[in-house]
Amino acid sequence: MLKLEVCLTPALLPLYDIDDRIVVVIDVLRATSSMCYAFHNGAASIVPVASVEECRSYAGKDYLLCAERDGKVVEGFDAGNSPFSFEKDRVEGKNIVLTTTNGTKAIQLSRSSKQVLIGSFLNLDSLCSYLKAANSHVLLLCAGWKDKFNLEDTLFAGSVVQQLKGQFELACDAAVAAEDIYEFAKNDLRGYLHKSSHSHRLAELNIEEDVLFCLKMNQTDVIPVLEGDKLVKL
Amino acid sequence: MLKLEVCLTPALLPLYDIDDRIVVVIDVLRATSSMCYAFHNGAASIVPVASVEECRSYAGKDYLLCAERDGKVVEGFDAGNSPFSFEKDRVEGKNIVLTTTNGTKAIQLSRSSKQVLIGSFLNLDSLCSYLKAANSHVLLLCAGWKDKFNLEDTLFAGSVVQQLKGQFELACDAAVAAEDIYEFAKNDLRGYLHKSSHSHRLAELNIEEDVLFCLKMNQTDVIPVLEGDKLVKL
Repeated sequence: MLKLEVCLTPALLPLYDIDDRIVVVIDVLRATSSMCYAFHNGAASIVPVASVEECRSYAGKDYLLCAERDGKVVEGFDAGNSPFSFEKDRVEGKNIVLTTTNGTKAIQLSRSSKQVLIGSFLNLDSLCSYLKAANSHVLLLCAGWKDKFNLEDTLFAGSVVQQLKGQFELACDAAVAAEDIYEFAKNDLRGYLHKSSHSHRLAELNIEEDVLFCLKMNQTDVIPVLEGDKLVKL
Repeated sequence: MLKLEVCLTPALLPLYDIDDRIVVVIDVLRATSSMCYAFHNGAASIVPVASVEECRSYAGKDYLLCAERDGKVVEGFDAGNSPFSFEKDRVEGKNIVLTTTNGTKAIQLSRSSKQVLIGSFLNLDSLCSYLKAANSHVLLLCAGWKDKFNLEDTLFAGSVVQQLKGQFELACDAAVAAEDIYEFAKNDLRGYLHKSSHSHRLAELNIEEDVLFCLKMNQTDVIPVLEGDKLVKL
């Protein structure tokens, strides 16, 4: 039977053998939600880079330059990681370069896997349909917050586990726990996240609209996939 | 307000500042349960060591030599980590040296903290009473399984969070998740653990009696504490 695993933070990824796995990178507040939304709105590509410096090196090359650190747009950049920075009029046909606190790092760490996909509530059903048909082991990688466990990414992982578990063996306890936390929270995801230790941080960032948007399910069919150095539409 | 955190596996411990924390080491199946039971039965001390070799070096020095790897007694040792190896007639007044797959490593990693305590369902209420009165930040460290997340240690962490949360700030998302998983499972802990990815492993080890024993709450008032190189009764 095909295996489904959940890695709760990038710091634990070295414990998993990813060579023969599809890795789904999850950073729902907000990097991977924004990536899905950008492709939904016609972006041509997104280059995920690890550092602000690397992001800056794309200046003058006809890229939209996006950099977020600690939840804020880095000074001097076109945008950070708010989904509303990736509306159609800004991104259609464009190449984007993006660095974020957690999500882009998780993508870099996943490069040696069979395939790297991007997941968020926005493309949940579409992603799950693809994974069901892919005939591959799957690892769901939560980007977390600075290598620590976070609730929002675990909730999303749980929602994927709930859809896939009939066809996959839950091969680690984290998959079981993620599903049960999702089951516990699914009727009011936003309310549940108020319990998060990050809720003060989120409140201070004044991104409530972003949070509500990122928790909307199935707004798009696109699945971003890593090809070489950049994400494109699958 | 005093902080309460949960570290889901020893691999994540470097992300936490433990200097000013009491660290509670949790390896309920079975190392920390057996430690509690040994002190309940009058053991004088337990020296937790990281390697089988180090454990062996205590031979001939009037110690009970206990070594477990992958759930089994290591050949040539008096016992492994089954609680039933630590009955009164074997341990009363004795010094014990013990190495286990996960628990003793977690203890070693916690040495730089303010105080290292040993937790298990067997001493749950006693432990929580002490922590409530200790006027200190607290980190609950799940020993996990070979650095991965496991359900049983997280359940126990959740049971402690549930008792302490009125007096502590839940300072990380892992504490919130642990409590909710415990809430989800508390009416049938043994049944819940059948969902674990380790349940086959546990079944093969033929330790069902051990598991049931380790899930019994409040069998003892003892709290093992690390003093220098050895655990003693607080």
